[in-house]
Amino acid sequence: MNRRSNRPARAGRPAGETSWRARRRADARLEILRAAATIFRLRGFAATGMREIAEAARLSPGNLYNYFHGKEEILYFCQDRVLDRLLEVLKTVRRKRGPVADRLRELAVAQVLCLIDEVEGSAAHFEVNALPARLRARIVEKRDLYERGVRALVAEGIRRGELGTEDATVGTRAFMGALNWTAQWFRREGPESPEEVARVLADYVVAGLVGEKARPEDKGDGS
Amino acid sequence: MNRRSNRPARAGRPAGETSWRARRRADARLEILRAAATIFRLRGFAATGMREIAEAARLSPGNLYNYFHGKEEILYFCQDRVLDRLLEVLKTVRRKRGPVADRLRELAVAQVLCLIDEVEGSAAHFEVNALPARLRARIVEKRDLYERGVRALVAEGIRRGELGTEDATVGTRAFMGALNWTAQWFRREGPESPEEVARVLADYVVAGLVGEKARPEDKGDGS
Repeated sequence: MNRRSNRPARAGRPAGETSWRARRRADARLEILRAAATIFRLRGFAATGMREIAEAARLSPGNLYNYFHGKEEILYFCQDRVLDRLLEVLKTVRRKRGPVADRLRELAVAQVLCLIDEVEGSAAHFEVNALPARLRARIVEKRDLYERGVRALVAEGIRRGELGTEDATVGTRAFMGALNWTAQWFRREGPESPEEVARVLADYVVAGLVGEKARPEDKGDGS
Repeated sequence: MNRRSNRPARAGRPAGETSWRARRRADARLEILRAAATIFRLRGFAATGMREIAEAARLSPGNLYNYFHGKEEILYFCQDRVLDRLLEVLKTVRRKRGPVADRLRELAVAQVLCLIDEVEGSAAHFEVNALPARLRARIVEKRDLYERGVRALVAEGIRRGELGTEDATVGTRAFMGALNWTAQWFRREGPESPEEVARVLADYVVAGLVGEKARPEDKGDGS
């Protein structure tokens, strides 16, 4: 968080001018993403122009173009970062041993927090159609990679008899939908904290996959 | 439902020229919706122009404007019709007695079928931000009405001890998300029929709400 000065660093850490510039640039891009995410959420991607993004980020439009060539590039950058993070969490939980339900719950919490708690989140998983074909193809590929990984985990749970859902594909998509939808409705001003929402949703999506199997078999028995 | 004609009807059925015209107009609008829905799904709403919609509907752009003044009006019409139908189903299931889970399952099936099986469906629940403020407000109001009704049903299930989800609001949104997301991924060319998908999803979303409550209490007991 320490911003270095323009002059060469004197201390032992290798923070030359280039890396300092790179870091300042990264910070500025993050600020822009934060502003863009807010305004995309409020007005929708289609209705937002670079001028509004610049205004929200307190930059001149000209300066904004130094960081991003267009709103599509901002959107791409957001979605790409979120997917990288999700793939990282997926790798971690797939390596673990314990019950599949627990690992899916961990993944679900991370997915919700990524979508609502992070700067890039609000733009992720939405408006993928707004991207130019080349960028869209890359995001769709990465998103499919993530979804395939989750589906493999769900399928493992079904094989092991831990999950009752009968269709790994539809089950995985229901799981994704309930989680991704959060980006549509969650408001920071609302009564629930991101962590609270993530926990309730994670319980929900896993219970959906555990499903029928876990229901009391004797419906007539009220006890 | 009977539209009266301007002129006195001669036969038993009031099918004068005006009602015939009205019906032909309704049919034409439906054809346009079908074409528009397909192209919105393929290209996204933002990237679609009236010209492409006209082309897909095999109309001249001028003729298209006789039916809809712009793509926003088409989107509004789609969303409004879907919401009317969902509110109708909601009214029916809220009047019924049986277990809340069964009534929610019936509602979930209808919601999925509305979103994927109907002409208007693919545009519904999405891109609401693309509507001009006045139209958006009407849709959001109607959507909130629907969501409040579903939440009341979920809350009833919690009160009665039939549903284990601990937060009626987040639970209802997870339910909605898993269902609404279907419009994002379902493809008619895919392996599952709409009815099959609706059934699996309905089981999933209800199991999510039944939740923890129904899970075997003794996790250690594998029997």
